[in-house]
Amino acid sequence: MNFKSVTYVLGWVLNIEGALMLLPFLVGIIYGENQAYSFLIMAAICVAFGIILIFNKSKNLTFYTREGFAATALTWIVMSLFGCMPFIINGDIPSFTNALFETVSGFTTTGASILDDVEALSHASLFWRSFTHWIGGMGVLVFLLALIPMTGGSPMNIMKAESPGPTVSKLVPKVRQTAFVLYAIYITLTVLEFLFLIIGRMPIFDAITTAVGTAGTGGFGIKADSMASYSPYIQWIVGIFMMLFGINFVVYFLLYTKRFKMAVLHEEARYYLGIILVAAGAITCSLYLTGSMPDMGFADKIRHTFFQVASIITTTGFSTIDYEALWPQFAVVILLGLMFVGACAGSTGGGIKVSRFLILFRSVRKEITLFFHPKRVVNLRSEGKTVPNETIRSINVFIGAYIFLFAASVLLISVDGYDFTTNFSAIAATINNIGPGLGKAGPTESFFSFSKFSKYVMIFDMLAGRLELYPMLMLLSPEFWKSVVPKHKIRSQERK
Amino acid sequence: MNFKSVTYVLGWVLNIEGALMLLPFLVGIIYGENQAYSFLIMAAICVAFGIILIFNKSKNLTFYTREGFAATALTWIVMSLFGCMPFIINGDIPSFTNALFETVSGFTTTGASILDDVEALSHASLFWRSFTHWIGGMGVLVFLLALIPMTGGSPMNIMKAESPGPTVSKLVPKVRQTAFVLYAIYITLTVLEFLFLIIGRMPIFDAITTAVGTAGTGGFGIKADSMASYSPYIQWIVGIFMMLFGINFVVYFLLYTKRFKMAVLHEEARYYLGIILVAAGAITCSLYLTGSMPDMGFADKIRHTFFQVASIITTTGFSTIDYEALWPQFAVVILLGLMFVGACAGSTGGGIKVSRFLILFRSVRKEITLFFHPKRVVNLRSEGKTVPNETIRSINVFIGAYIFLFAASVLLISVDGYDFTTNFSAIAATINNIGPGLGKAGPTESFFSFSKFSKYVMIFDMLAGRLELYPMLMLLSPEFWKSVVPKHKIRSQERK
Repeated sequence: MNFKSVTYVLGWVLNIEGALMLLPFLVGIIYGENQAYSFLIMAAICVAFGIILIFNKSKNLTFYTREGFAATALTWIVMSLFGCMPFIINGDIPSFTNALFETVSGFTTTGASILDDVEALSHASLFWRSFTHWIGGMGVLVFLLALIPMTGGSPMNIMKAESPGPTVSKLVPKVRQTAFVLYAIYITLTVLEFLFLIIGRMPIFDAITTAVGTAGTGGFGIKADSMASYSPYIQWIVGIFMMLFGINFVVYFLLYTKRFKMAVLHEEARYYLGIILVAAGAITCSLYLTGSMPDMGFADKIRHTFFQVASIITTTGFSTIDYEALWPQFAVVILLGLMFVGACAGSTGGGIKVSRFLILFRSVRKEITLFFHPKRVVNLRSEGKTVPNETIRSINVFIGAYIFLFAASVLLISVDGYDFTTNFSAIAATINNIGPGLGKAGPTESFFSFSKFSKYVMIFDMLAGRLELYPMLMLLSPEFWKSVVPKHKIRSQERK
Repeated sequence: MNFKSVTYVLGWVLNIEGALMLLPFLVGIIYGENQAYSFLIMAAICVAFGIILIFNKSKNLTFYTREGFAATALTWIVMSLFGCMPFIINGDIPSFTNALFETVSGFTTTGASILDDVEALSHASLFWRSFTHWIGGMGVLVFLLALIPMTGGSPMNIMKAESPGPTVSKLVPKVRQTAFVLYAIYITLTVLEFLFLIIGRMPIFDAITTAVGTAGTGGFGIKADSMASYSPYIQWIVGIFMMLFGINFVVYFLLYTKRFKMAVLHEEARYYLGIILVAAGAITCSLYLTGSMPDMGFADKIRHTFFQVASIITTTGFSTIDYEALWPQFAVVILLGLMFVGACAGSTGGGIKVSRFLILFRSVRKEITLFFHPKRVVNLRSEGKTVPNETIRSINVFIGAYIFLFAASVLLISVDGYDFTTNFSAIAATINNIGPGLGKAGPTESFFSFSKFSKYVMIFDMLAGRLELYPMLMLLSPEFWKSVVPKHKIRSQERK
């Protein structure tokens, strides 16, 4: 492993993080808050460390799969460690574990909070907390791809490790141009949402934090009741934009390049929208059949249903009502199911991803077809193309790794003694980067009461979920640590 | 599809079932119960139907995969429909849905009961109820293989469909001899357990029903408190035999043929025993750390722990204590995890099977290894042999189908409005053929209170779980129904 390539990337990441910390400093200055200076201090420290790491660079910057995965895992850990410091320094979140949990939850766009009273935070901290969603949503490494020159391997190895979904489509032939295009779409959509919110007379600070929180499909709100106290117009806007940020960004690129037919025919996006429609329809029906929320009109019911469905399937985690208390169990189970489905690959959303489920479902259907026609050649198709066996295999292994990590995590946090619903949904909510779960981890509660040990389990799960398991699982493998400290330099035998 | 081959098999199944119903009739006569005659009546009806179907046979008895799977699925459904009738006729379980649920639960060796007061049943019904476990444990079709002559295809296609596990090992070159050997082992172990129980002064009726219930890894008890009121000796015997019936029967065959080294080295059996050891150890530790069951000594704690672990991993479902109330959540989550792991392939136990998890786990490890050594050829090995890609693929698809069926079932029964723990564990307990779950479906409750709709969902799941999904999923496929009623006779184009 070319470890100096990895530390070089980490150096740049710290520089960028330092620069970004000037934004919450500015916000704090505007509101005249002393807490602002913690961000200035940490910005300086980030840049100092960053520069040291960059100067320590090696001649060859190679990025094969393992360097890509190692850089990704370490980037997210280092970014979170430095990113949580301002909260500790300015006293907004004095405990290290809690500050780290909150920051990892931010960067991974989970939105699970340990804060019981979020409104007590300074504006500087509130802004940084929401802004971490925006940074983590698209991924800071994707951005870096446009900056760092490489001499071996491929930047695709970083992009593969950081981007959500079973496959990465290069929108344009060059990876770094792809990174630019993705960020352009991301910024455009964020600004659009901000403008729509401003039109709805949302205060500017609220509009900024909400827009960046939606864009990253994060879910940190700046109010104790999340989005419940805003106007129906604002709730609709946030709901629609959550849905939009969950669509595969390829679709926006196709729209931008005027390939409308291809955009409309995008299979994953159509299934994703179909699932939202069916889930919202089923929940609305169940609300009427069980007579839930009787004091609300049809329009309100539809709005709340659409909002929660969009929020959960995109793994954002905003809420407008306490669905756990108000909705029938059937509707709650649908939401719990959507947590696992997740958004489209190539979006900022988490979860297992619609395209993975599509391919998994088709492989089951294929197996059954083969009972009737053992000699028929059945190809698995996705987006109009035959899915290579390699992809099917890697999806299957992904599901396997996911199940093992999920089960181990539920077991580990069960030590705290909470009920099964709480444990199961807390892990579902963190590994899928959603935020609120059910029970003690429900939308009206916080993750504060979990033990330190459980919080570290969930910190690991949030990172594993955001990075699609492997970069984090790699850190648990003895082979990784062997390759970090090599006895003699192993010139990598693999060339792609 | 050669449908007449299927009905011919069904005819034989009914004849056998009719003959077996004479046993509960005899038991009832011994105890002087009027309920006994319901079994005589149904025995006659079974045989009458059976003979009609057998006389209706076609010249060619072909069993390709689809005939094998269709015969298996229909056999289990027909067997359950006829098998539940005595309960209705003699009034022990007057409702059709409940009687069918109880019978399917029996044949599939689940052991989930709708009876709130099991001790109110007649001895004839109690015996039949436990005996269905024994019939279902090894599978009636495996037995039939030794009887029916075939002209095309292979009897392996039936054996594949009915036997638990990812692969079927033929113990001896001929399938029908394999069937005989399996039944010989099965009967020997059952008789052994019966004798050990009699030595422990268990009443004969109790010993018979307990032995057949353990052999099939079923779990129907004849007491309201399951095994709690029996002596520690009896509990140890039942616990040990549950564990033994969960071992791959190949091991016993190897022991019988004096290949001791191969038997000891059997990989799946070793992991299975290892899991039991680790789980029991972890639970015992957690009992001490949390100070649970403080009035019990070490020997009692060990006994109860081993009993519940063996009962759940083999998917039997007997219990000696109310673990949900007495144990810490950590221990309960371990049990819930064991529900999914299940016993060995080629045993009478249910669940996903240890060998499937082993291969799944190794495929995840392989994926991670490939990050470090992309060009290394890594073969997946199991039982010392390289696992063919075909098997890996089919295991992955199995897990996929399992997840879809599981999620859909939890959603469907959530309509009843019970809490998530109840719904999740009720489906886990039925699809894995265990019996008791948690909450409303817990070891001290019954499945009585679920709605009719939910009971049918769980009836489907129990059958799907016992038959390893595909035969039942096939019934949901439109292709199946097309092939049942063919417009013109399709001479099957496939020859194996």
